[in-house]
Amino acid sequence: MFFASDNAGPTHPLIMSALTDANAGYAMPYGADPLMDEVRTQIRHLFEAPEAAVYLVATGTAANSLALATLSQPWQTVFCSPVAHIHEDECNAPEFFSGGAKLTLVPGTDKMTPKALADTIAQEETRGVHGPQRGPVSITQVTERGSVYSLAELQALSDVAKAHNLPVHLDGARFANALVQLNCTPAEMTWKSGIDALSLGGTKNGCMGVEAVVFFDPDKAWEFELRRKRGAHLFSKHRFLSAQMAAYLRDDLWLTTARAANAACAQLAEGLRAAGASFLHTPDANMIFAAFPRAAHRRLHEAGAVYHIWSGELDGEDPDEMLAARLVCDWSMTTDQIDRFLSHLG
Amino acid sequence: MFFASDNAGPTHPLIMSALTDANAGYAMPYGADPLMDEVRTQIRHLFEAPEAAVYLVATGTAANSLALATLSQPWQTVFCSPVAHIHEDECNAPEFFSGGAKLTLVPGTDKMTPKALADTIAQEETRGVHGPQRGPVSITQVTERGSVYSLAELQALSDVAKAHNLPVHLDGARFANALVQLNCTPAEMTWKSGIDALSLGGTKNGCMGVEAVVFFDPDKAWEFELRRKRGAHLFSKHRFLSAQMAAYLRDDLWLTTARAANAACAQLAEGLRAAGASFLHTPDANMIFAAFPRAAHRRLHEAGAVYHIWSGELDGEDPDEMLAARLVCDWSMTTDQIDRFLSHLG
Amino acid sequence: MFFASDNAGPTHPLIMSALTDANAGYAMPYGADPLMDEVRTQIRHLFEAPEAAVYLVATGTAANSLALATLSQPWQTVFCSPVAHIHEDECNAPEFFSGGAKLTLVPGTDKMTPKALADTIAQEETRGVHGPQRGPVSITQVTERGSVYSLAELQALSDVAKAHNLPVHLDGARFANALVQLNCTPAEMTWKSGIDALSLGGTKNGCMGVEAVVFFDPDKAWEFELRRKRGAHLFSKHRFLSAQMAAYLRDDLWLTTARAANAACAQLAEGLRAAGASFLHTPDANMIFAAFPRAAHRRLHEAGAVYHIWSGELDGEDPDEMLAARLVCDWSMTTDQIDRFLSHLG
Amino acid sequence: MFFASDNAGPTHPLIMSALTDANAGYAMPYGADPLMDEVRTQIRHLFEAPEAAVYLVATGTAANSLALATLSQPWQTVFCSPVAHIHEDECNAPEFFSGGAKLTLVPGTDKMTPKALADTIAQEETRGVHGPQRGPVSITQVTERGSVYSLAELQALSDVAKAHNLPVHLDGARFANALVQLNCTPAEMTWKSGIDALSLGGTKNGCMGVEAVVFFDPDKAWEFELRRKRGAHLFSKHRFLSAQMAAYLRDDLWLTTARAANAACAQLAEGLRAAGASFLHTPDANMIFAAFPRAAHRRLHEAGAVYHIWSGELDGEDPDEMLAARLVCDWSMTTDQIDRFLSHLG
Repeated sequence: MFFASDNAGPTHPLIMSALTDANAGYAMPYGADPLMDEVRTQIRHLFEAPEAAVYLVATGTAANSLALATLSQPWQTVFCSPVAHIHEDECNAPEFFSGGAKLTLVPGTDKMTPKALADTIAQEETRGVHGPQRGPVSITQVTERGSVYSLAELQALSDVAKAHNLPVHLDGARFANALVQLNCTPAEMTWKSGIDALSLGGTKNGCMGVEAVVFFDPDKAWEFELRRKRGAHLFSKHRFLSAQMAAYLRDDLWLTTARAANAACAQLAEGLRAAGASFLHTPDANMIFAAFPRAAHRRLHEAGAVYHIWSGELDGEDPDEMLAARLVCDWSMTTDQIDRFLSHLG
Repeated sequence: MFFASDNAGPTHPLIMSALTDANAGYAMPYGADPLMDEVRTQIRHLFEAPEAAVYLVATGTAANSLALATLSQPWQTVFCSPVAHIHEDECNAPEFFSGGAKLTLVPGTDKMTPKALADTIAQEETRGVHGPQRGPVSITQVTERGSVYSLAELQALSDVAKAHNLPVHLDGARFANALVQLNCTPAEMTWKSGIDALSLGGTKNGCMGVEAVVFFDPDKAWEFELRRKRGAHLFSKHRFLSAQMAAYLRDDLWLTTARAANAACAQLAEGLRAAGASFLHTPDANMIFAAFPRAAHRRLHEAGAVYHIWSGELDGEDPDEMLAARLVCDWSMTTDQIDRFLSHLG
Repeated sequence: MFFASDNAGPTHPLIMSALTDANAGYAMPYGADPLMDEVRTQIRHLFEAPEAAVYLVATGTAANSLALATLSQPWQTVFCSPVAHIHEDECNAPEFFSGGAKLTLVPGTDKMTPKALADTIAQEETRGVHGPQRGPVSITQVTERGSVYSLAELQALSDVAKAHNLPVHLDGARFANALVQLNCTPAEMTWKSGIDALSLGGTKNGCMGVEAVVFFDPDKAWEFELRRKRGAHLFSKHRFLSAQMAAYLRDDLWLTTARAANAACAQLAEGLRAAGASFLHTPDANMIFAAFPRAAHRRLHEAGAVYHIWSGELDGEDPDEMLAARLVCDWSMTTDQIDRFLSHLG
Repeated sequence: MFFASDNAGPTHPLIMSALTDANAGYAMPYGADPLMDEVRTQIRHLFEAPEAAVYLVATGTAANSLALATLSQPWQTVFCSPVAHIHEDECNAPEFFSGGAKLTLVPGTDKMTPKALADTIAQEETRGVHGPQRGPVSITQVTERGSVYSLAELQALSDVAKAHNLPVHLDGARFANALVQLNCTPAEMTWKSGIDALSLGGTKNGCMGVEAVVFFDPDKAWEFELRRKRGAHLFSKHRFLSAQMAAYLRDDLWLTTARAANAACAQLAEGLRAAGASFLHTPDANMIFAAFPRAAHRRLHEAGAVYHIWSGELDGEDPDEMLAARLVCDWSMTTDQIDRFLSHLG
C-alpha cells in the first residue's frame, strides 16, 4: 500500500526491455545515438511540431530548471503558483540555473487563474531597472494538487502571458496523466494552447529516470545544449535515456500507464468518497488530497500503508479529528492494494 | 572497432541484472532506498573509511563539479592540470557549480608534478583580497593522457596541498583502471595518500550511468546533499543508481572490468609497438596516444574503425606522415576487435 | 518642492568639507587609509561594540546584498517583508550576490509582525533537501512605508529568528531617522535587540554616497572583505568613503540631519492633516503616504512639485477622487518648500 | 615619495570644484541628472560615436566585470593576458558577474601578440558542447606592465578576434595615459581599431572614483543597465559621478593630467637609467619596472619612499643584488619627489 508518490514505483517492463535491447555493443555518446533520432522523430510527430528541439535529462528538476533558465534572464522573475514544484521542491534550483532570477508567486492554492496571473504581472509594474523584469510564466499540468487545467484554462493563462510578451513553460512531470484526462492531443495541450517550452515527464509514469525538454521554437536549442552540459546533465551513455523515452512513447505506452494510474486513483477516490472522506481538491488525475478521521489513519499506518499526512498530526487525542492525506497512484498500483487500503477506512 | 571512448560501451550484464532485480515494487525515493545502504557500507568497507560520506550521481561532470564546489569558495581558485577534464571538457561546470571560482592551470602536459604544483601555488601568492584565494587541488587518476600516478606521486602532490592547508580532490572517472594497475588498496590510493574527496567513476567501466562521490571527512556531507539537490542531481528513483553501484562493487566486478580494459589496452599497445608506432605517453591503463602513418589511419577509417585523430589531419598528401590517435579500450573490448585493428596497421 | 526621495538631495556642507580635507597628497588605497581607522573606532564606540567588523561601500543595495550574502547560503531563503527594498528595488541583487538564494515574503503591508514571521518560518518547514533551507531574517528600519519599529518590536522579531537559530540583518538605509525617533542608543537598536548585521545608511541622510556594513560578530569579516572585492565594491581611493562616514558620525551630524528630516516631515504631515488628507501609514520618520484630492495633485504638479503618485492616476476625470502620494523629506528640506507645498492643497 | 600606485593620489582640484558645483539642491537620482546628459554628449563627441551607450560606475573592477559580462555568456571563455587586471586583481569578479565564464590566458609576459592570441583561440577548438565556447577578447591599454599598444597592434589583435566573430573589450583604466602617448584620437584607439566596449578610467588619473563604460554598438545598453543595477553599482546620487566625469573630460583635463603623469614617469625613468638601473619593460606611459641594487632600495625605504618591490626581498645579505621595483606616477607627482627619490639611488 504505497501511495507516497508516483516517483517510487517500478520501471515498466517494456522500458526495462528497451534498456536491455539498447545494451548491445558501442553507441555514440552524448546524444548522438541513433535511438535519440527516434525519440526526436517521435516527439515531433506526436506533438505535430516538425521543428521542435528535443532533449533528454534524467530528473524533473533538471528539465524545469534548464528550460526556465533558457527562457529567462537573471534579472527577471518567473511567475508561478505558490505550490509549484519549482518553488517548493527544488531547493532553489531554478534560481541557481537561471543565475539568480526570482520567482514571483501568483496567489492561489492550486490552479493559477488568469485574473490572479494578470494582477500579479501588473503589480510587477515597470519600475525601470529597480524591480526585477518580467520573465516566463510557468504552469504545472497536472498541478501539485492533482488538478488538471482544461485547454481553455491553459489558453487563458498563456493569453495573459502573451499580452506581456512573456514565454510560457509547462511543467509536465505528469503530462500524460493530464493528457488522457483531457483526451486531447499533445499539440492541443502545448503549443496550440500557447506553451513555448515543455518539461515532459517520464520518471513518474513508468520510466526509470528520464524527462524530455521540448522547445517548440528551436531558436534557443543551442543555448539549451550548452546549459545542459554546463549543468552536468548531458549523459555520456545517452542511449539509456533515449531507450527509455523511445519505449515510453512507442505504441502509446505513456498513455496506457497514465490511464492505469488515473484509473487506480479514480477507484481510490470512489472508495474514499463512499467512506465519507472529504476532498481538499477535485482529484482529476492520479493524486488525491482527502481528509478522514485520525483513527483510520492509525489503522492504515499500523497496516503498513505509506503516504503523506498532509495536515494534522497522527499523534493526537481525538480519534475523530479529520486529518488530510496526500495519496498518489502510479501506473503499477493494483486493485488489490487499493482494496486493502479502503478496507482500513472503517 | 570502437576505440573512441570507454563512455560508449555497453553496460555489464551483471549490472543490467541488478537493475532488473531492483525493479520490484516500490522503493523509498531520493536515496532512502535500502540498496543505498548497501552501497554506503560497501564503499566504507572497501575504502576502510567507516565515517565516509557517500553519494551517487549520474555523470562524472556532476561528481567533479559538486565535489569541488563543496570543497571551495567562489573567490578561490582550483589548481589542476591544463588537460584536466574539469578544465577542458565540462563547459565551465566547475565554475558554475562553485559560483564562479577560477581554475588555475599547473603547467604540464600530463601528470602534475609536485614542483609545478608548488610553484603555481606559490605564484598565487597572497595579494590580500585582490587575487583569487587558494582553493582545492584536483588530481586526475588515471590522467586524461592515460597515465597512472604512483602512490608516492599522489602523496607528494597532496603534501604540497597540505602544506598550504588546501583540500585535495581526486577525479577518479577511471579509478578502478588505476587501482588494478597499481595493485594497491582503495584506501592507499585515496585518504592514505592525502585525498579528501573522490569522484569514483562507474560509467566508463561497465555501469550504465553512475558515479559516487566520497568525502573521507563527513563534515561537509549535508552541504553536498543540498548542492546535489539544488543542482538537480538527486534522483527520485534513486534505487537504480544504487543498484548499479552495488553490483559494480560486489564480488570485485569493478576490478574485473578494469582489468579487462587494461589488458585489452596492453594488447593493443603491444601490437602498435610491434607495428612501429610511437607513443606520446606511456599507456599505463586503458588509453593510448600513439602515432602511426596516415596511410594506416586511412585504412582503419575505411574499415570502420572509430577513434579520435589526436593530431594532424586525415586529409593530407603524405601517406607516411605520422598522425597521432587516441585509442581507448573499455571492459567489453574483444581480442578480435583489437586484432582486426592491428591488421590494418600495415 | 522636491519630495520624491531623500536620495536626491545635496551632500551636507560638513561632508563636502571633509572630502576636501581628505584630499591632500597620497593615502593608502583599499581601506588602509587612516580615516578608515577613525570610522572603525567611531562605529565601535557609538555602537558599544569593540569587536565589530566595519566596512564601507557606496550604495545601499551593495550594503544589503553583500551583508545578506555573507549571512546566507545559496540554498537558503531570506525572510523579509513584501515591501522590502531587497525584494522590490534591487533588481535581484540579493539573489545575485548570494548565488541564488530565495526571498520568502512574510505577509504584511508594512511592519513585519512576529506572528507573521513565525508562521512563515514554520511554513518553510523541514522538507529535507527539497525546499530551500531557512536563512537570515531581514528587517527594514525605517520601513519602506515610513514606520519605525519600537525596540520591543525589533526584539520580538529577532526572538523569533533566534528560536530557529537564524541570523538577523537590519536594512538601516534610514537608520538615523529611526534612531532619533526612538531616542535610543545605536546599541539598543541593533545588537541589544538581536541584530547581527547592519546596513548603516549615509547616502539618504546627507552623505554623497556611502553606507557602512557592521557585523557585531566579526567571525565573517574576512568573507565579507572577499565578497566586497569580488563584487567590485572595494574602492581604491577609499579615503573618500571614509571621509564621508567620519564626518557623518562626528559631533552627531547624522543625528542632526536625521532630526531635520524628521522635523520637516512632521511639519508636512501636520499641514496635510489640517488640509484633510488621510494617511495610509503613520509617518514615524521622514516619509509620508497620504491621500488627497486629484485637484490638489494637479495644482502641485503644475507648480513644479516632484513626488511619486502612489496610487491612482493624475489623469482622470473626478477632481475629488483621492490619490495617494509618497512624500519624502531629506535633511535639506526647508520650511519654505513645505509651506509652498501645503499652500497648493486647497 | 609615493610611487606605489596611481590609485592613491589626490583628486584634481577642478574635479573637487565640480563636485561642489554639483551640490546644489535636488537632482534626479540614478543617472537621470542633467550632468549625465553632458557626460554622454562629451563622450559621444570625443569618441566620434553619436550612437554610443555611455554609463558610469565607481570602480574599475565594476567597469570591467560588467562590460565583460554583457559581452559574454556563462559558458564562454574570455581571452586575456596572464597579467591582466581582470585575471590577477579582481578576486574572480569577472567570473562572478558573468555567471561563471572562464578566463583563458594568452601566453605572454606583457603585451598580447596577435600570433599568441590566434594560437590560443585556435586551441580552444570546437569541441561541441564539451569545452567552453569562445567569448570576448579583453585587451589592457596601458598594460599592467606599463606598455602601450600601437594602433596597428590594437588593430591586429581585434582582427584576430573578428576573424572568429568575437567582441573586443578594452580595459582602459589608464586610457588617457596611452592616448597622449600615442597622440591619437579616442576614436582611433577604440572603435576605429575594432574595440567594441571600453572601460574608460577616471580614478587613476585625477578623479575621486568614477569610470565610464562605453558600448560603441548600443545594442546591449539595456542589458548593461540591468546588470549595473543588479550588481549594486547604480548610484542614487549619481550626479556626483557625472560631475567628476564631466569635469575630467572638460577642456582636456584628462589629457593634461595624463601628460603630467607620463612626464613625471619619463623624468623618473631617465634618472633611473642614468643611475644604471635596468628596465624589465619599456616604460611607455606612467609605470616603470626597473631593477637596481638592494642597497639603494634600503636607502629609499629608510627615507620613506613607498612602492612595490616587484621581485626579490628587501631583507637579504648582498647589498649589490638587483631587486626590481614597480614605480607608478600619478598626475600629482612632483619633480621634487622624483628628485628626492633619485637622490637615494646611489
